[in-house]
Amino acid sequence: MIKAGIIGSTGYAGNELVRLLLQHKEAKIVWYGSRSYIGEEYASVYRNMFRLVDETCLDDNMEALAEEADVIFTATPQGLCASLVTEEILKKTKIIDLSADFRIKDVKTYEQWYGIEHKSPQFIGEAVYGLCEINREQVKHARLVANPGCYPTCSTLSIYPLVKEGIIDPNTIIIDAKSGTSGAGRGAKLQNLFCEVNENIKAYGVTTHRHTPEIEEQLGYAAGCPVTLNFTPHLVPMNRGILVTAYASLAKDVTEQEIRAIYHNYYDSETFVRVLNPGDCPETRFVEGSNYVDVNVKLDSRTRRVIMMGAMDNLVKGAAGQAIQNMNLMFGLPETMGLMQVPMFP
Amino acid sequence: MIKAGIIGSTGYAGNELVRLLLQHKEAKIVWYGSRSYIGEEYASVYRNMFRLVDETCLDDNMEALAEEADVIFTATPQGLCASLVTEEILKKTKIIDLSADFRIKDVKTYEQWYGIEHKSPQFIGEAVYGLCEINREQVKHARLVANPGCYPTCSTLSIYPLVKEGIIDPNTIIIDAKSGTSGAGRGAKLQNLFCEVNENIKAYGVTTHRHTPEIEEQLGYAAGCPVTLNFTPHLVPMNRGILVTAYASLAKDVTEQEIRAIYHNYYDSETFVRVLNPGDCPETRFVEGSNYVDVNVKLDSRTRRVIMMGAMDNLVKGAAGQAIQNMNLMFGLPETMGLMQVPMFP
Amino acid sequence: MIKAGIIGSTGYAGNELVRLLLQHKEAKIVWYGSRSYIGEEYASVYRNMFRLVDETCLDDNMEALAEEADVIFTATPQGLCASLVTEEILKKTKIIDLSADFRIKDVKTYEQWYGIEHKSPQFIGEAVYGLCEINREQVKHARLVANPGCYPTCSTLSIYPLVKEGIIDPNTIIIDAKSGTSGAGRGAKLQNLFCEVNENIKAYGVTTHRHTPEIEEQLGYAAGCPVTLNFTPHLVPMNRGILVTAYASLAKDVTEQEIRAIYHNYYDSETFVRVLNPGDCPETRFVEGSNYVDVNVKLDSRTRRVIMMGAMDNLVKGAAGQAIQNMNLMFGLPETMGLMQVPMFP
Amino acid sequence: MIKAGIIGSTGYAGNELVRLLLQHKEAKIVWYGSRSYIGEEYASVYRNMFRLVDETCLDDNMEALAEEADVIFTATPQGLCASLVTEEILKKTKIIDLSADFRIKDVKTYEQWYGIEHKSPQFIGEAVYGLCEINREQVKHARLVANPGCYPTCSTLSIYPLVKEGIIDPNTIIIDAKSGTSGAGRGAKLQNLFCEVNENIKAYGVTTHRHTPEIEEQLGYAAGCPVTLNFTPHLVPMNRGILVTAYASLAKDVTEQEIRAIYHNYYDSETFVRVLNPGDCPETRFVEGSNYVDVNVKLDSRTRRVIMMGAMDNLVKGAAGQAIQNMNLMFGLPETMGLMQVPMFP
Repeated sequence: MIKAGIIGSTGYAGNELVRLLLQHKEAKIVWYGSRSYIGEEYASVYRNMFRLVDETCLDDNMEALAEEADVIFTATPQGLCASLVTEEILKKTKIIDLSADFRIKDVKTYEQWYGIEHKSPQFIGEAVYGLCEINREQVKHARLVANPGCYPTCSTLSIYPLVKEGIIDPNTIIIDAKSGTSGAGRGAKLQNLFCEVNENIKAYGVTTHRHTPEIEEQLGYAAGCPVTLNFTPHLVPMNRGILVTAYASLAKDVTEQEIRAIYHNYYDSETFVRVLNPGDCPETRFVEGSNYVDVNVKLDSRTRRVIMMGAMDNLVKGAAGQAIQNMNLMFGLPETMGLMQVPMFP
Repeated sequence: MIKAGIIGSTGYAGNELVRLLLQHKEAKIVWYGSRSYIGEEYASVYRNMFRLVDETCLDDNMEALAEEADVIFTATPQGLCASLVTEEILKKTKIIDLSADFRIKDVKTYEQWYGIEHKSPQFIGEAVYGLCEINREQVKHARLVANPGCYPTCSTLSIYPLVKEGIIDPNTIIIDAKSGTSGAGRGAKLQNLFCEVNENIKAYGVTTHRHTPEIEEQLGYAAGCPVTLNFTPHLVPMNRGILVTAYASLAKDVTEQEIRAIYHNYYDSETFVRVLNPGDCPETRFVEGSNYVDVNVKLDSRTRRVIMMGAMDNLVKGAAGQAIQNMNLMFGLPETMGLMQVPMFP
Repeated sequence: MIKAGIIGSTGYAGNELVRLLLQHKEAKIVWYGSRSYIGEEYASVYRNMFRLVDETCLDDNMEALAEEADVIFTATPQGLCASLVTEEILKKTKIIDLSADFRIKDVKTYEQWYGIEHKSPQFIGEAVYGLCEINREQVKHARLVANPGCYPTCSTLSIYPLVKEGIIDPNTIIIDAKSGTSGAGRGAKLQNLFCEVNENIKAYGVTTHRHTPEIEEQLGYAAGCPVTLNFTPHLVPMNRGILVTAYASLAKDVTEQEIRAIYHNYYDSETFVRVLNPGDCPETRFVEGSNYVDVNVKLDSRTRRVIMMGAMDNLVKGAAGQAIQNMNLMFGLPETMGLMQVPMFP
Repeated sequence: MIKAGIIGSTGYAGNELVRLLLQHKEAKIVWYGSRSYIGEEYASVYRNMFRLVDETCLDDNMEALAEEADVIFTATPQGLCASLVTEEILKKTKIIDLSADFRIKDVKTYEQWYGIEHKSPQFIGEAVYGLCEINREQVKHARLVANPGCYPTCSTLSIYPLVKEGIIDPNTIIIDAKSGTSGAGRGAKLQNLFCEVNENIKAYGVTTHRHTPEIEEQLGYAAGCPVTLNFTPHLVPMNRGILVTAYASLAKDVTEQEIRAIYHNYYDSETFVRVLNPGDCPETRFVEGSNYVDVNVKLDSRTRRVIMMGAMDNLVKGAAGQAIQNMNLMFGLPETMGLMQVPMFP
């Protein structure tokens, strides 16, 4: 039985970790960390957990936690994990960081986009980017996993095969993404009030969103050269879900069948990536509550562009589910353990 | 392994049965019945099931199905189950009827409120009303279970203890209920379009809703005498969830503590009924996707009335979840098997 | 041209005052008061007003404002208006207070339910409760109008005729009300975040909501004796709208036709109260953006109770619209001026 | 007083025409056409109009209507207007067609994308494309106006200045659009049910949406050469609103200030196009219920692309409001008459 500690257990991603770990038969939660709610019952902060969780929230003492836990999940604001992790801690326990601290290999890029100083750059090199479908083998041996961002997970999985195969020109990629509001976190901010989000759609972080360099880096590995792209996220009046609609120009002559064959080749052996039937567009409702990413692609012969689409639950495959998928790999468990929830619709 | 057939598998309750049965380790689905989609792939009707269900929709031939299935779930419009069931079928298989056909013991009451003739009144007597928390023992031995309606489940569980204990005057009961829109079914009706439901709340079926006599009958058993009450449902712009707010006048002098003690006495041993802490009002978001009913009660000393509240997921405890809870009882399995989903929030 | 000042112009009710006053041909806004946004452009706080309002937010100096304005609207938290108003101010200007400070005639009741000391009880006596349909004549001559609460407006108008005519027993009244989330204000509170409100319904303030004594007082005037009742509000995932479903037992033998005739008698001459056709239930979507209240009533012969229903837009008839209706009366303008917006659906 | 007839008055766009015309002081509605509801009271089909509209729905006899009306609005499915209009009718009355029948100058393009035969191609030449901000003078003298599509209105106004000025390469344009569900009409279709739309976002009509050639044609006029582009609409769980996020590569070296100056130059004299402040992204909530289009632009120096954004209410500027704007021009009235509704938020 894996003993898991969560730092930042009272955010939406933290609560989703709790939901999924409670249903994982080889893991148990030993530490409900939450700086904001120390001493309060977890089930009073998240009443869905009434009678399911009896524990009280603890602080974010990673050193103490490392003594008790086999794995620590940090579902915390940027910078916190980097400020707490030490070699001593990593000798005792594994860390899966749901923040961005260890996702970007170039410290300067991180510091420029996030506007904060990185407190433990010495661990960036060994950290493994935990996009399991791509870095599965490295994850198995990692002490420190950087759990990918929600938008980068959906974007990268939707686009990766065509970049890797050289089908599209990576510098023509434009990603127009849409997210449910749980992605904005549980902070009490005016712009996230019900009446501000409901009956509205807007773009935000246009040309400046922090997930941009993360996507560029990952697709750059696939392309074998640096990639610069446009990424525009939008806020949608729904709780969960991310939809990616990505555009790129063809780099060579191919048919839609050939393109589809590539996707099937890359993903048919993957449990959590479903390549939809021709003509079916991914929809967030069909993956809600599950670890699936639904992808599909369409070729527009008029413009010689491909439209690549992906849908997933931002709190599951985009955060807690993928974190557990990484945990399973790191501990030698079946990768899908505890993650076979059937999507809940409606 | 229990072989389960579903007639009406493409309604929302039918799809929820599929979702839950796919995660039930002692049951498998052998028949996806759907009169409207015969010959179509189930996963094309419900794309959440893509790659999870490979079967094609079949007709509603209950006789043929009885040869293959250990249990048949009928998630169909009123009247269909009663028109299909026969003694021969009941000798071969068990039936859990999610429609209202066998819920009401008095045929005239059924025919009056539902406006249709009952086609097999000979089975009404043996049918067991499958509200497990109250009729557990009878369910275990039933061939034919009438799965309770969504509103009656939430209403009865919220009110039952105080009627049974004679604390409230049952003829003062007023039930004001609110439901998400999945309760209206998947039929393509104008009044259920997004733009008609969204940004709106309305009462419907005022004084005439068909769940009224069902609630009256069940509370009448608790009271030991006929009960007449007001039941008013409302349509809420959300997918899932039922909230009941019920009012009644005290029949004797009691304190809130005494009332709370009654609820704890009735429900603390029940897995699926959670009596909330004092002051906490049930909310549908905290039970979504799960089989829990959250209940609580408040005494208003100014008016000498009690306000009894309950929240549950109409598609789980109000339909498919309770049906599986009944199945578990009928087949001697642990009552909670396949039903321990942690509520998903947000 | 009436010069209007608004204290609290950046709350949702304040912004609705701005929306309506901009379209009122005999009024202009001379003061956009907002303690939280002093010095900021109003249109940067409410971007719907971009290019429509050029002014900057000012403080809440009521004395200075009284020099400039013919009427002051206070759309502020409880207690503020009472702490600012003086005889000097009332000699110079009229005040329409959208808070609860002057709604309740008994200071002790106010202080008990609101938990604050009343700072200017000397004005409570002269303040007129601005429910225009009932107190029209007094409003015309008032210096200080207490604009009714949102729930009390909808509740009182829905119930008033049957209490006044002695048709129902006022002490059997139970009001189950449902409100959109704009009623909770624009404060950045956790419980009002999109993900906390969306896909949820809950009761709140059960037995303790502050609008209870206000409704009891108004219905008490109609009954000619004190009234004690139950009032339970619920939060609905929509922006605007209040729905009231009220129950009461008959005090005398009447038919539904007789009851309907009473409603028509009271309201057919009222522009803003629409008595719906038999069988039509009020729905909030059909009054959105307008000053209408839709009401209807149904008699349940089984239980000898009436169900009284009302729907309105909480920000219009429940706040800003009614405030302007009061202003029109106080300044001798046609009561409907600036308030004939057609309900916007969907 | 202009006598207006509406064919298709019971769709969402038709109802919005009614809402706006009721508030227009120089127009009155003389014909509520609705093939589906002939003989029914209009206010029973749209209960927001209770006591505001007393008329009964009539058929779609355009010849008879031409005798009574000065202007006919056709808010009907594609093909109907073209099948009804004749020279005799156009001699008696003006027509503003909200369908696509006369928007596209090339009949073959129309027939190919819409899949129907055009029944009156002889009028295509004289029909004026009623995008008032661009074709104002031609509209003034038109007998037959093709009211632009909702997506094309928002897309064209957002992109037009930079194409016209040669700042961007028109063949690099990618339009990612998002619409509320009222755009899908009031037909009782499964895919538009509340539970199918709510908590979901999806793309649809990828590479095949019929508004594509309409946008291409209009931008082609601006470019002076044929334009081929990508247009991808998405369905958003909200009632009203369209958001356009468009991407294009720079064709010459410019600064963001220079680009912004172009937008201001084109639109500062336009009442209904608001160029937002730098950094402010258009949001649908801030134009709801109004005829405004909010636009803004951002230059991404990393990719040398511009992101052009626009938000509007699809039922107002995208349909009924723009139709009335056209009517005002055609009848020599002030262009803004009856259209100065302040956006309603929340």
